[in-house]
Amino acid sequence: MNKVITIGREFGSGGRELGRKLAEEMGIAYYDKEIITEIAKRTELSERYVKTIVERRPVFSYPVHVGRSFLSVNTANVIQSSAVYAEQCNLLKEFAEKSDCVIVGRCADYVLNEYDPFKIFVYADMQSKINRCKARIEGGEEKSDKEIRKYIKSIDKHRAKYYEFYTGHVWGDKLMYDICINTTDKDIESIVPHLAKMI
Amino acid sequence: MNKVITIGREFGSGGRELGRKLAEEMGIAYYDKEIITEIAKRTELSERYVKTIVERRPVFSYPVHVGRSFLSVNTANVIQSSAVYAEQCNLLKEFAEKSDCVIVGRCADYVLNEYDPFKIFVYADMQSKINRCKARIEGGEEKSDKEIRKYIKSIDKHRAKYYEFYTGHVWGDKLMYDICINTTDKDIESIVPHLAKMI
Repeated sequence: MNKVITIGREFGSGGRELGRKLAEEMGIAYYDKEIITEIAKRTELSERYVKTIVERRPVFSYPVHVGRSFLSVNTANVIQSSAVYAEQCNLLKEFAEKSDCVIVGRCADYVLNEYDPFKIFVYADMQSKINRCKARIEGGEEKSDKEIRKYIKSIDKHRAKYYEFYTGHVWGDKLMYDICINTTDKDIESIVPHLAKMI
Repeated sequence: MNKVITIGREFGSGGRELGRKLAEEMGIAYYDKEIITEIAKRTELSERYVKTIVERRPVFSYPVHVGRSFLSVNTANVIQSSAVYAEQCNLLKEFAEKSDCVIVGRCADYVLNEYDPFKIFVYADMQSKINRCKARIEGGEEKSDKEIRKYIKSIDKHRAKYYEFYTGHVWGDKLMYDICINTTDKDIESIVPHLAKMI
C-alpha cells in the first residue's frame, strides 16, 4: 500500500508550506490546488465555482411544511455540492492508489481512512497566523490585524463546518490526527526533515 | 539557557515512557517521581500524602455566611496544598536551572514558561490506553475494560482539574503545546529518535 500523508491546517499556520516541503523532502507527489482543477475538468464546472463548493458545505434550506407535503428550496445546489464531493472522494482515492503522496485539506484524512494515512494537523496561535498572512497574502501588509483576524476566523469557520458536515467529526480534534504541530514562532523548513523521518 | 522539555500526557498513553526514552536518547536529566520524593523531603510530609496533593487541586469548601462574617472550613488543607504547589514550582525551576531536562506532568509547561520549554502532549484513543494499562499496571490483566476505562477517566479528570486550577488553561488544549503526539497503535521506541532531532 502506498504511503499517504494527509494535512489538515488552520488558515495562516503554514500547513500548505509544510505539506509541499514534506513532499519535496520525501520525493513524493503533492496534491493541493490540482484537486480543484481536476474536479473542474471532470464535472465541467468552472474552477472558481468548484473552489467555492469544495470549501463550503452545501447550505440546506429548511423544508417548508405545507399541509402534509414538504417542499425544499435549493435542492439543485445541494445535489451539485454532493456530486462535487463524490468526485473529490474518487479523485483522492485515485491519488492514493497511484503513488506515495501528500494531500492537503479536502477531508482526505477521513476519505482515505482505508489507506491508513499518516494524519497531520498544523496550527498556530492567532498572532503568528496574522503575521504569516501579512507576509504571504497579496496585499496582506496593507490590511490591519483586525481585518486579517476576521478573515482567518471566517475561513476556518467554513473549514470546520465543511469537515463536520462530511465526516461527522470535529475539525482539529487532536484524536483525529497522528500528530499535531504548532508552528507558532517555528521555522517550517527546519521541522520538515525530522518529520519526514518520523513518518 | 538549558533545554527544557515538558510532557503532558493522558493516563495510559505512554507519555511517561516517551519522556524517559527521550531523556535517554538525548542524554539529559529526567524528572518524574523524583519530584514527589524531593517535595516530601522539603515539606516533611509523607511521600504518599504529597502524591495525593500534587495530583489533586485543593478542594475549597464554600464559605458559610453567618451574619456579617464568613467562616470557611478546611482552610488548613488548602494552605497545605498551596504550600506544596509553591514548593513544586521552586523545585521545577531548580531543575530547569541545573541542566537540560525532561519533566513529566506537574504543570511544568506553564510553571517553566520563562525557560521557553519545548512542550509535548501525548494522547491516544481509549481502547489503546486500556490495552496499555492492562499490559503495564499491576493486576491490570485481571480487570475488565470497563473498570480500566473508569479508572483512566477518573485520573484524567483529576489531571484536567488540577491543571485548570493552577494555570487557568484547558488541559490538553493543543494550543498550549508545541507538538501533540497520538500514540494509538504506535511503537514509542521508534518515535523517540526522530522526535529528539526535531526538538
